[in-house]
Amino acid sequence: MKLAVDQPRLVRELDALAEISDAPAPAVTRVVYTETDLRGREFVKNLCRQAGLVLRDDAVGNTFARWAGADPSLAPVGTGSHIDAIPNAGRYDGTVGVLGGLEAIRALQHAGFRPKRSIELLMFASEEPTRFGIGCLGSRMLTGMLDASAGERLKDRDGTTLDEARTAAGLTGSLEEVRIAADYYSAFVELHIEQGPLLEKRSVPVGIVTAIAAPSGLRITIEGEGGHAGAVLMPDRKDAFLAAAEISLAVERSTLATGSIDTVGTVGVCEVFPGAVNSIPSRVRIEVDVRDIDESRRDSVLTKICSACDEIGRRRRVDIRTEVVNADPPAQCAPVVVEALAASCSAHGFEYDRMISRAYHDSLFMSRIAPAGMLFIPCRGGVSHRPDEYASPDAISQGTLVLAQSLAHLAA
Amino acid sequence: MKLAVDQPRLVRELDALAEISDAPAPAVTRVVYTETDLRGREFVKNLCRQAGLVLRDDAVGNTFARWAGADPSLAPVGTGSHIDAIPNAGRYDGTVGVLGGLEAIRALQHAGFRPKRSIELLMFASEEPTRFGIGCLGSRMLTGMLDASAGERLKDRDGTTLDEARTAAGLTGSLEEVRIAADYYSAFVELHIEQGPLLEKRSVPVGIVTAIAAPSGLRITIEGEGGHAGAVLMPDRKDAFLAAAEISLAVERSTLATGSIDTVGTVGVCEVFPGAVNSIPSRVRIEVDVRDIDESRRDSVLTKICSACDEIGRRRRVDIRTEVVNADPPAQCAPVVVEALAASCSAHGFEYDRMISRAYHDSLFMSRIAPAGMLFIPCRGGVSHRPDEYASPDAISQGTLVLAQSLAHLAA
Repeated sequence: MKLAVDQPRLVRELDALAEISDAPAPAVTRVVYTETDLRGREFVKNLCRQAGLVLRDDAVGNTFARWAGADPSLAPVGTGSHIDAIPNAGRYDGTVGVLGGLEAIRALQHAGFRPKRSIELLMFASEEPTRFGIGCLGSRMLTGMLDASAGERLKDRDGTTLDEARTAAGLTGSLEEVRIAADYYSAFVELHIEQGPLLEKRSVPVGIVTAIAAPSGLRITIEGEGGHAGAVLMPDRKDAFLAAAEISLAVERSTLATGSIDTVGTVGVCEVFPGAVNSIPSRVRIEVDVRDIDESRRDSVLTKICSACDEIGRRRRVDIRTEVVNADPPAQCAPVVVEALAASCSAHGFEYDRMISRAYHDSLFMSRIAPAGMLFIPCRGGVSHRPDEYASPDAISQGTLVLAQSLAHLAA
Repeated sequence: MKLAVDQPRLVRELDALAEISDAPAPAVTRVVYTETDLRGREFVKNLCRQAGLVLRDDAVGNTFARWAGADPSLAPVGTGSHIDAIPNAGRYDGTVGVLGGLEAIRALQHAGFRPKRSIELLMFASEEPTRFGIGCLGSRMLTGMLDASAGERLKDRDGTTLDEARTAAGLTGSLEEVRIAADYYSAFVELHIEQGPLLEKRSVPVGIVTAIAAPSGLRITIEGEGGHAGAVLMPDRKDAFLAAAEISLAVERSTLATGSIDTVGTVGVCEVFPGAVNSIPSRVRIEVDVRDIDESRRDSVLTKICSACDEIGRRRRVDIRTEVVNADPPAQCAPVVVEALAASCSAHGFEYDRMISRAYHDSLFMSRIAPAGMLFIPCRGGVSHRPDEYASPDAISQGTLVLAQSLAHLAA
């Protein structure tokens, strides 16, 4: 079998998808269930139809595009990623795994390969936590890691529930039916940009992921007392924002205190109420993200942050509520997928590194129900979640080629 | 002359104006030039028309409602305040000075008083800095403290200029024509809630203001470097929000360092970009408000904050821009107004305190072109800029009665 990726087509499709955005180019903003997200999904689905794939959407908006195998009674091999993008992001995060996955299937079709198992391309709903504050909504629900009743009650900042939002987006059916069986897939493999600098630094074209770091999220709400910025004297204040500032610095301090380079902690969201220059903040909400490849080390950071909240709340006489939004265990990638990826790299003469994923992907959840793995391609400067995110056409093609070879191996 | 305030009417009008709001009751949100602000202004203007006052608007939206005196060649006496309200505010800040001012005029009319000088009720545009980041827009421009060309270029958060916004609100004419002559008014007096706890604590119904504290505003923009919250390691970060957190704590520290109870400093606005839980903040804007009755002491706080910004910017490798939005000198109230207020309190048997205004009012600017003064009435708990802001009907009536008596004295 002579496999070839149509690089110009793939790059053209990635660029065309990036045009479907709520931010001016080169930035991409595509938040789940917005009209722009729906247009982006329709763009990908049309390409899938042209490739002869059979489509279905589930109730939360995961899309399945199947290339039927010779034996439809066998569990299929899955591949895919997401196309939703945080505000002001780049064009490669997720999309390379969706359009690259499609191109891998087309390359196999073009080479005359006939899979024994079906190959199913997945476009997961809401991998990014932008709207509902929790990442990997689609894969969480698909794998039963978030149940339907908890999922449908999730709310965005405007108070719209997930259930209302997905209904408005035209997704019908019960969320109860999203979950799939633990033996649905025989294997799952996801192509993704590294979102880190290691592959580029080492000039290695492929990273084979062996473990995915454990993410966790805290939502912290601080209730103080508002008032006029001129009239309330300093000793009488219960300023919610100053408490939030201290907590945010405690997040950084607690993260650094582990002494491990693998621990990262971030406050990415801070909403101040009422948010007027001459008004003391009465309520602030911050969202905290802590990750590590070592779960107990990560959890020790969360514990420290909560202790800091207690101390700060008492000292500043503000009420602080801490809610753990998610605290998922890390995932080990399946040897069968890791070895298929390694063999595929060797078959095409590509050097590879085994590495861990510091970022958090749908594969983390897919690993709960299937032998799962990931391959990374380099991205410039390790930059991601920014408009200047960039992966070269060659890097994308090489990753797609390794993916296609691995799918062939896993579906044979 | 037997003066009487129609308390039920005045309370009814204050309540009706509070209904015109972009926030659910009891909160009031009325931001300048919004449809709600325009409806609120129209409500007041209709009441003025019913009282036989002659109306005009200037190009920035200050409204003048004149009760003609016996000698129209004499400079009129001014009174008034504002009706715009910060997000989620209460119903008395500003409005008591506008509707109370109108009621004072009606009380004088009802008592058969015939003023020699005209009495002019002012409803100032945008006393609150919510939309354009600078307070007292209307009175600043009226008194020439902000010139037309600087004023029209001011932008709100959406990038709309003041000139565009006021034009869209139907205000025509040149902003150059807003400024009035330095001898336009013979005197100006403003009725306002205290926005502090002193009168209530002492059970005194009237405060006569002798000086207004000097406000200043800084807008600080921090440019760091964004990136994926999972993938960028801690030592490689240039997190704009953590710098903002440190700066905000430096604002508090610098304020407390003066050792004076009269120095207050607040960070009321913090906007984080891109504002996603899994994205390192690349840009943050905070707005700082520092006030004191002593200008040099206040300016020493600003200097300390700017030094802190320098140190934090260097250490965290982020770019920090500091812009002084305003730094106005404090005002001394005019003895002629202070004495008129004192005599009016005595005439009605009301105890009064002489006090300073810690909050910042249109009178601060009116004092540049006219003998100006203020009277305060108690408000519950000193609370303001909150939905639970409250002044009792009796307190409002008493303040209105003293205002009416003073206007009669100044216009006789």
